[in-house]
Amino acid sequence: MVIGILGGGQLAKMFAQAAQRMSFRVKVLDPTPECPASAVAEQMIGSFKDPETIFKFAQGCHVLTLDIEHVEVEILYELEGKIKIIPSPRIISLIQNKLMQREFLAKANLPTPSFKKLKDPSQLPLLLPVVQKAIHGGYDGRGTVILKSKEDLFKALTVPSFVEEYLELAKELSVIVVRNEEGQTVVYEVSEMVFHEEGNLLDYLICPARIEKSLEKEAKELALEVVRALQGVGIFAIELFLDRNGKLYVNEIAPRPHNSGHHTIEACYTSQFEQYVRVVTGLPLGSAALRCPAVMFNLLGEEGYFGKPLYEGLPEALSLPGVYVHIYGKKETFPFRKMGHVVVLGQSIEEALDKAFKIKKVLKVKGELKK
Amino acid sequence: MVIGILGGGQLAKMFAQAAQRMSFRVKVLDPTPECPASAVAEQMIGSFKDPETIFKFAQGCHVLTLDIEHVEVEILYELEGKIKIIPSPRIISLIQNKLMQREFLAKANLPTPSFKKLKDPSQLPLLLPVVQKAIHGGYDGRGTVILKSKEDLFKALTVPSFVEEYLELAKELSVIVVRNEEGQTVVYEVSEMVFHEEGNLLDYLICPARIEKSLEKEAKELALEVVRALQGVGIFAIELFLDRNGKLYVNEIAPRPHNSGHHTIEACYTSQFEQYVRVVTGLPLGSAALRCPAVMFNLLGEEGYFGKPLYEGLPEALSLPGVYVHIYGKKETFPFRKMGHVVVLGQSIEEALDKAFKIKKVLKVKGELKK
Repeated sequence: MVIGILGGGQLAKMFAQAAQRMSFRVKVLDPTPECPASAVAEQMIGSFKDPETIFKFAQGCHVLTLDIEHVEVEILYELEGKIKIIPSPRIISLIQNKLMQREFLAKANLPTPSFKKLKDPSQLPLLLPVVQKAIHGGYDGRGTVILKSKEDLFKALTVPSFVEEYLELAKELSVIVVRNEEGQTVVYEVSEMVFHEEGNLLDYLICPARIEKSLEKEAKELALEVVRALQGVGIFAIELFLDRNGKLYVNEIAPRPHNSGHHTIEACYTSQFEQYVRVVTGLPLGSAALRCPAVMFNLLGEEGYFGKPLYEGLPEALSLPGVYVHIYGKKETFPFRKMGHVVVLGQSIEEALDKAFKIKKVLKVKGELKK
Repeated sequence: MVIGILGGGQLAKMFAQAAQRMSFRVKVLDPTPECPASAVAEQMIGSFKDPETIFKFAQGCHVLTLDIEHVEVEILYELEGKIKIIPSPRIISLIQNKLMQREFLAKANLPTPSFKKLKDPSQLPLLLPVVQKAIHGGYDGRGTVILKSKEDLFKALTVPSFVEEYLELAKELSVIVVRNEEGQTVVYEVSEMVFHEEGNLLDYLICPARIEKSLEKEAKELALEVVRALQGVGIFAIELFLDRNGKLYVNEIAPRPHNSGHHTIEACYTSQFEQYVRVVTGLPLGSAALRCPAVMFNLLGEEGYFGKPLYEGLPEALSLPGVYVHIYGKKETFPFRKMGHVVVLGQSIEEALDKAFKIKKVLKVKGELKK
């Protein structure tokens, strides 16, 4: 069986590795020569935003999937029925439009921050504090700004956007849910995401989340409800807000393997990538149980460095037990670019965190060019 | 860094996958087009028994290693010093000659079955019961015959061979030892190997071995002594005999990742393949600790089937938790060919064994041709 992936980034690379263990063939479509997945799978160089290219790529694939949701979706509607597409074009469309995503959640009576379309940007000063989100194309923290006071207004987005209530958050959580064509589901343990103040990028992730059992149960049930409401087939990361009153809100849905599930490779019985392989190939789902506490953090390009990446501190990091360094193989680094990630296992969260902090201090992605 | 592997079988494939996680590049040299490792790494099609081909292959590699010890070794002596070779040609030579291997063990005062070169095959009837071994080229049970009585003599080997005492065995054990260039070592938990009566092939493996703590310690120390005596750099599987009096003997040494270490991917903190990657790239060794009990069995080509392999029972196998199916991607099956393996994790050995037996009944490798 040949699995085609739109996008050849790190998610496609890790997916390919899981697929190859069972000898499924993987092809990726990506415009960047030598994209991360090309090191392990066949790459067709081309744009996943071009209908004709996608059409050509789909020939010879038995199933199509993606590692990024910003793909040209109209052609996928045309291909549907001729080839299995997971997630479905309907879901991809919904996720591409963050306003539609919010509307879907509200309509399904799922808790989500209250929101409204921003018709006139001159209204913004009256709405403070507020969160402004681009309707299209947001990714990795781009396309979201928090406007607390008038001093922040210079950051306001000028693209089509909506606003939503600014919540005082206690934590941000993530739950990975897998659902196959038979409707079988598995839900991973709740992860806690700690964000980098500056880049609005994930700083580190802790699994299991440091929350009470009852809340854990509630979060998992809520995530499952979202996927059921979507009637989604595939793997979904449900990002949740926990406010200071202990109330949960659905923030965003990612219809693919997710950064908040990277620890599942080493920490769970079945990784998010293998689950996704099982879904697209029609195999039964595996156990999502957590084998031990884990901390994950991204390896981001250091500020001030560009060009060919240089990895510093690898021997020091690997001299600690239960440490897994993933390097994606991107050919160029730039500040805050996701160049890899590290998973740290421990007997306890504290032990894992302690090791993670040590590694973060020494493991750096610098570059050949310094500016 | 580019790592070159002589041989592109399943060991090279799994090694490549571990290397690729940290974005090391892997090239393999193998005569069979579309060899297992070619699905994930760059293949040069050519013989690892041809000096010129090996010489050409080595250009552009920073380090050379192997997935099979039956390679042309003279050229490796010439290349030594120009390129890092792990294991060293000295060790490859020693392992290629099973008689020299025995002599080395005896000289190092390591317990090994008593043996002597068979100069005259007509002596065999006087030596019964006895084990006869080919000096060169034995692999996966080929090149070893057990001659218990005169009725067995028709099986006697006609190639240069030696004989060794026939031991009444209680168990066969295996210990994986890793040693890097700095002399740092790690030793894995002892595995117990249960052999298939007929094919003399591994039937299933249990880790940890069901033996007493004191014996476990003795086995690990003995394996470590073997690698120290070898002054070996690399990864070594030390196969041990345990006789019915509780005495341990060194049977054979494999100077590479080994079938008896396949469970380490899922059951240990650091897999045998990642350890090997760390050794060849000069990184510190990882923890070899066992995370939970494991059973491993090989997926062998069913008797009577040939041609393109067909895998039966995959959904049934994967519906159980903690089950990992590796399919090597060989293009043709034949009876008893190693086509893949399965690792089963459990809370206890009994639980893992129970699941393994269930899977063995349903998971079959058949083929397009039936004879």
